[in-house]
Amino acid sequence: MLRLPKVSRVLGRRFRSAFVAAPRLTTSDLNRSTIEAKYAVRGKIPIRADELRQEVKQNEKLAFDEIVSANIGNPQQLDQTPLSWYRQTLSLLQYPVLIDKLQKMDETTRNALYPADVIERASKLLKSLGSVGAYSLSQGDQVVRESVANFIAKRDGYPASADNIFLTGGASAAVLYLIQVLSQGGNLGFLIPIPQYPLYTASIALNNATPIGYFLDEANDWSTDPKQIRRLIKENTEKGVDVKSLVIINPGNPTGAILLESDIAELIDIAAEHGLVVIADEVYQENVFHGKFVSAKKVLAKLLEKDPEQYGNVQLVSLHSTSKGVSGECGQRGGYMELVGFSKDVQDVIFKLACINLCPVVTGQALVELMINPPQKGSPSYDLYHKEISKIHEALDERATRLHEAFSKMSDVECNKPQGAMYLFPSLNFKESTYPQLFKKCEADDLTVDEFYCSELLENTGICCVPGSGFGQVPGTHHVRTTFLPPGTEWIDKWEKFHEKFVKEYKI
Amino acid sequence: MLRLPKVSRVLGRRFRSAFVAAPRLTTSDLNRSTIEAKYAVRGKIPIRADELRQEVKQNEKLAFDEIVSANIGNPQQLDQTPLSWYRQTLSLLQYPVLIDKLQKMDETTRNALYPADVIERASKLLKSLGSVGAYSLSQGDQVVRESVANFIAKRDGYPASADNIFLTGGASAAVLYLIQVLSQGGNLGFLIPIPQYPLYTASIALNNATPIGYFLDEANDWSTDPKQIRRLIKENTEKGVDVKSLVIINPGNPTGAILLESDIAELIDIAAEHGLVVIADEVYQENVFHGKFVSAKKVLAKLLEKDPEQYGNVQLVSLHSTSKGVSGECGQRGGYMELVGFSKDVQDVIFKLACINLCPVVTGQALVELMINPPQKGSPSYDLYHKEISKIHEALDERATRLHEAFSKMSDVECNKPQGAMYLFPSLNFKESTYPQLFKKCEADDLTVDEFYCSELLENTGICCVPGSGFGQVPGTHHVRTTFLPPGTEWIDKWEKFHEKFVKEYKI
Repeated sequence: MLRLPKVSRVLGRRFRSAFVAAPRLTTSDLNRSTIEAKYAVRGKIPIRADELRQEVKQNEKLAFDEIVSANIGNPQQLDQTPLSWYRQTLSLLQYPVLIDKLQKMDETTRNALYPADVIERASKLLKSLGSVGAYSLSQGDQVVRESVANFIAKRDGYPASADNIFLTGGASAAVLYLIQVLSQGGNLGFLIPIPQYPLYTASIALNNATPIGYFLDEANDWSTDPKQIRRLIKENTEKGVDVKSLVIINPGNPTGAILLESDIAELIDIAAEHGLVVIADEVYQENVFHGKFVSAKKVLAKLLEKDPEQYGNVQLVSLHSTSKGVSGECGQRGGYMELVGFSKDVQDVIFKLACINLCPVVTGQALVELMINPPQKGSPSYDLYHKEISKIHEALDERATRLHEAFSKMSDVECNKPQGAMYLFPSLNFKESTYPQLFKKCEADDLTVDEFYCSELLENTGICCVPGSGFGQVPGTHHVRTTFLPPGTEWIDKWEKFHEKFVKEYKI
Repeated sequence: MLRLPKVSRVLGRRFRSAFVAAPRLTTSDLNRSTIEAKYAVRGKIPIRADELRQEVKQNEKLAFDEIVSANIGNPQQLDQTPLSWYRQTLSLLQYPVLIDKLQKMDETTRNALYPADVIERASKLLKSLGSVGAYSLSQGDQVVRESVANFIAKRDGYPASADNIFLTGGASAAVLYLIQVLSQGGNLGFLIPIPQYPLYTASIALNNATPIGYFLDEANDWSTDPKQIRRLIKENTEKGVDVKSLVIINPGNPTGAILLESDIAELIDIAAEHGLVVIADEVYQENVFHGKFVSAKKVLAKLLEKDPEQYGNVQLVSLHSTSKGVSGECGQRGGYMELVGFSKDVQDVIFKLACINLCPVVTGQALVELMINPPQKGSPSYDLYHKEISKIHEALDERATRLHEAFSKMSDVECNKPQGAMYLFPSLNFKESTYPQLFKKCEADDLTVDEFYCSELLENTGICCVPGSGFGQVPGTHHVRTTFLPPGTEWIDKWEKFHEKFVKEYKI
């Protein structure tokens, strides 16, 4: 009893310790902003889905025998196979001794295990990284950042510099620390699209900043309306909000919309006029079905070329990731951001935040290099690489089309044709006049109509989606966000049956 | 010119865009707390070292031909070889196709490439993870968390639950979001040891909380004085600070001290009485040279057994990492935290933060499993594994001793014998009375004595260390933090020579 006051030890008796125990924390003791932050993609419905998944494992009697995870863009959790090029190279980075062992084999045996260009790339990366178990520079490995700069220059036709590239643990890590750096004071405003990816509202809430939602136009393929954005800046500035940043998600999550080059140019005009930092979330740039992706960086570079004075102060951060596209390597946490137009002082603060985070996972950095610098024509891995990515592109296209068709046929559902990304965001056109019992039930259960629908969908079919309210929607409208990643069509058939039963039950 | 107002297009002329460009951001537009956060381990001296490293590469004429990175515990940047057990298993997790290829080989060829227990463990992990490219549960993979719970139970002799384990991207990620959750309001106090690992002051600054430093006692092997902590709680509470948490680092960084079980018990007493959340940073638990590491969890469990009423409300978070120990896998970003005693509501908020961060890198999660559940006696990898870890332990022990000896011999330097961790924190006993020119020079250059010393050491020898001021020290004292990781003794000889020259130059 080391802790007892001396007198007790002297008495040789066991006493209660000489203090009154304090109570444990309650949520009211915690940072209010962490309480208020919401993240629907892993919110109530997905948490309930995890419980049901356990019940399925334990052979509980349920209406379904598996959970269909359509709530999150997590391709490899479903049936997407990783690209051989990535995984072969990463396996050698993890175990460089194998490179030596391979070098000692005869050529045929070696080639059957690893293509020569994989061994070559792994060796090149190891030369720069040393070991994937060592911390890298906080901004990310120099060789990888140079590759990223080359990739951007080639994609856009305008130069990029490795000094402005920051490798990050997925795009999420970039968003989290960018919004932290920019969130000065409590009345700082971030313009975000509605519907949006809830990481933005969560990060804004964590930093006590103010989200200013601009509505995307569902009737016009979820397009962006610059006039509305100008109006919101005016209104919010008058209310005393210091509007600091404009977030664009292109291709859109959850809408799948692709921004027109002319709209991006007008958004950059707005940023130039109002001194807004443009955060361009372009993680779905490879997931394009219809239309053409043009990067915000390219549009800005074009404008700068024409009029350096007007656009010289525009500050743009573009985000990319290894989690989406045809890579789908969500669990590997690779990504980058490119900063354009920031002053050295400001960039130094962003760099310091990167330092406090030590460094992004080094294998994720290597994966960025493998994504943006793939096998070239004529190299041993080229054919397999192209076969694999074509297959993924085709599968995604086919699934998007199939799911869109299903929604088009469902009663009282409308859904825009997918242009890009991995999601559909159909609208449930349930009105109180024709679905009175549904609205009564939702009111009694304290649920929104879309929450109730998603909950019923999950409990009856095992399909896990996210209510539109988690992303934001025009008041009075109800949506569901679903990925089109789950394989097969059986789950879509189930959803169709569920939906018609639901409509039959509630529609008068 | 799509952006021009309609009238300009009608006129068919190229006009300047119709707005006045706003200025770009300055640091005064940024979040003040991100400006104020400091992180010395990657601060001015290491940044200067990176510049010098470039100059060395470009064959500039310098007084040295390499930079010795003694500023950061990054073993694999130096000469520590990763453990074969880790890297073999991780390579199979990255490229599971190789498992199939191995299974098709004859046994001799297969065993020459991969031991059977590696293949077995990789297969077991893949069964739970699916793919390392898929997002896992935000809290971390269930199988890995169960392994961690077993490891803790075995280490301490008291049970642990997988539900209370959170896998994290190194221990840093855990510290960053814990301090965020706990930082309610501006006058919230965190008790931290001085000297401390600067991630704590940085996280506290980022959240506008108040650091309350308690001085470790250099004269008594950097021990912790519970009386001082009680006094600081009283004083700060009277000043209106809401003291919320007590950070302990055991083994200590940068001091290398190991806490006595009786001291930990008394610290827990203090936490119980004042309702403080104990954050026990135990990432160096495997790096012990003298003395014995006892976990805070074990001490708490013992106390709870004796007196559940008094200790039932104590809330403890213990941190561990794959970056230190004999693992040294800094770049892989693996780690975990165990929560003890938190209410479900509070734990749910911590869980939500984990969700916003999506999930820790999945290969890092697997690495946690490999660290805490190594090959067992009789398994094919056992002998090599033990040979490798013994070699690392011996090398660290030898280097610590060698460097300590060097400091003991240097004029006007004192250094406690290392007990644990990877650092020495020698004191430079330079007094103004005997080093008047040194103090004048520092004042003129606006540098502290330790900053000046580290800067001179770097410019003259290429050895990169961190000034004690980056970790905190008793006012009027001056220290240097150095790792003892760099190989060989040449750099130590150089340091000794530099030091004697420095003393000769400045001492009267």
